[in-house]
Amino acid sequence: MTDTAFDVLTIGNAIYDVLAHVDDAFLVREGLVKGSMRLIDAEEAVRLYDHMGPAVRQSGGCAGNTASGIASFGGRAAFIGKVARDEVGEAYAHDLRGFGVAFATPPLEMGAGIPSGRSMILIAPDGERTMNTFLGAANELTPADIDEKTVAGASVTYLEGYLWDPPKAKEAFRVAADIAHAHGRKVALTLSDSFCVDRFRGEFLDLLRSRRVDILFANEAEIHALYETGDFDSAIAGLARDAALGVVTLGEKGSLIVEGDRRIPVPAHPVERIADSTGAGDLFASGFLFGHTRGYPHGLSAELGALAASEVIAHIGARPEGSLLERAEQAGMLER
Amino acid sequence: MTDTAFDVLTIGNAIYDVLAHVDDAFLVREGLVKGSMRLIDAEEAVRLYDHMGPAVRQSGGCAGNTASGIASFGGRAAFIGKVARDEVGEAYAHDLRGFGVAFATPPLEMGAGIPSGRSMILIAPDGERTMNTFLGAANELTPADIDEKTVAGASVTYLEGYLWDPPKAKEAFRVAADIAHAHGRKVALTLSDSFCVDRFRGEFLDLLRSRRVDILFANEAEIHALYETGDFDSAIAGLARDAALGVVTLGEKGSLIVEGDRRIPVPAHPVERIADSTGAGDLFASGFLFGHTRGYPHGLSAELGALAASEVIAHIGARPEGSLLERAEQAGMLER
Repeated sequence: MTDTAFDVLTIGNAIYDVLAHVDDAFLVREGLVKGSMRLIDAEEAVRLYDHMGPAVRQSGGCAGNTASGIASFGGRAAFIGKVARDEVGEAYAHDLRGFGVAFATPPLEMGAGIPSGRSMILIAPDGERTMNTFLGAANELTPADIDEKTVAGASVTYLEGYLWDPPKAKEAFRVAADIAHAHGRKVALTLSDSFCVDRFRGEFLDLLRSRRVDILFANEAEIHALYETGDFDSAIAGLARDAALGVVTLGEKGSLIVEGDRRIPVPAHPVERIADSTGAGDLFASGFLFGHTRGYPHGLSAELGALAASEVIAHIGARPEGSLLERAEQAGMLER
Repeated sequence: MTDTAFDVLTIGNAIYDVLAHVDDAFLVREGLVKGSMRLIDAEEAVRLYDHMGPAVRQSGGCAGNTASGIASFGGRAAFIGKVARDEVGEAYAHDLRGFGVAFATPPLEMGAGIPSGRSMILIAPDGERTMNTFLGAANELTPADIDEKTVAGASVTYLEGYLWDPPKAKEAFRVAADIAHAHGRKVALTLSDSFCVDRFRGEFLDLLRSRRVDILFANEAEIHALYETGDFDSAIAGLARDAALGVVTLGEKGSLIVEGDRRIPVPAHPVERIADSTGAGDLFASGFLFGHTRGYPHGLSAELGALAASEVIAHIGARPEGSLLERAEQAGMLER
């Protein structure tokens, strides 16, 4: 294993977030499942946008959020994902580079008539978010976009389950995982959401059991969906069997690291308020991976994840607002 | 005076905010005056954007912010301002309408090659904002955009000092003020910022002394700039002489209402944290005007203004995140 150029490369759908406050009645009226992510077409995007109130706009997407978090901790992060050569795509690239994330995927040319992807994120009064995603250019990620040198130079390549939705992206996912392993690197997968798991359960289990994926990130609902059980212990037993390393986030209950017979429970970080849960899991992953790639013990890595998650849910949007490294230092986490 | 269709019509530069955190060293390095607003051209906009970190994007502009605040209080608000027929312009219109603000100014067609205006707002660690504004389409507001029926139907027409920068907008300002007075309505002006006052001091004083403006909104620096004095009492004496009604905001010291010989000091509303001062003055004006157009006593109107200002500085961006009416009700302000 040679020196790395990046701690973590994340690959995922490049999505611009359009965030708005709604009440629960709005979700009911629109027939939406609170807390879920659904894919919508251009027509539905226009319809829903017309119904939505005033919005805040910010770059998002699971993998992009995680890369931004890693860079905010001071880690070396890269991102691969597809935007269009339009104003939203330019903003997306600007924001990643502003965090210090390397991003060189060529944008989709406008001749294709496909705009950059975006998600209308509806924030309920309790801070829970419901996502309505129009993939747009993100749908056009292909194996040709997987830059071999970048993957080969990253200690961990982190992939999102949502990549399984666009057919060409799924193939790109497989190509990236193979390159990473060919160079002795690790591959991580986040299950993204429980509905995504329902769509691709068999394939995700295959990825784990064939060890094409080394580290699995999931929340409680996702791990239950993966093992089709309502029993947490059964799900964790399945995870321990199938994944070399499992990282399960449990909301206010904290997180649980699962590695063979080891179970490391880690409490959540105190939160002043929950303004918007968007990005909580993505930022948890950023903290964990930052610590993991520095060789920290799993417990400390999970604490860094919890710290990052607590920062991002205290405000609207899924990208950190200040330096996560400074926060971790102020909390004394990096002095032990 | 006949029935009104709107409580307040605001007219101003339609500006999309691109907000990013910076440290004080960044402002020094870029040669920027902390707390100021400067106008920049397209070239400088590109240069500065390249230097800026990751951003949050949201509709802004003083007059648009104030209109959104009035609507959030449950008042009937309209806005006149110029965007281009581009993605940013569509977002701007969407957000105003999402608040319930009437907005019917025709956008500038793309053939003009001028994009919607935007301001790069740099937020320092203490929450103070420094604005770098590329006017774009906002520069193209003309008297033809002043819809007579809308002005005639608004109890108060509120104009921003920044309108004095684009030459055609200044003329539009005068046309709007004359229509309002011809229909027995009131005209309000906000001085916008102290550098703006320096640019147009004589004209602003003429507007007041000729009673083309009935209500003046200003902060401490602006009122000092208007009367070219460092002495607060002298400035207030000038204001009492020149304006029928003066509303002076004093930051954490609250506000002072000036009407002839009357001086009504009102304390600031408690603030949990100052995340971003952008929009504080605009939202103060929204609360004051909401109360004023309902015939509330000046003191209560100023308390509503202070409440709105405290909400908007607690988060990033210059538009309220929740219902200001609900906040005012919860604070028991509307039960007296």
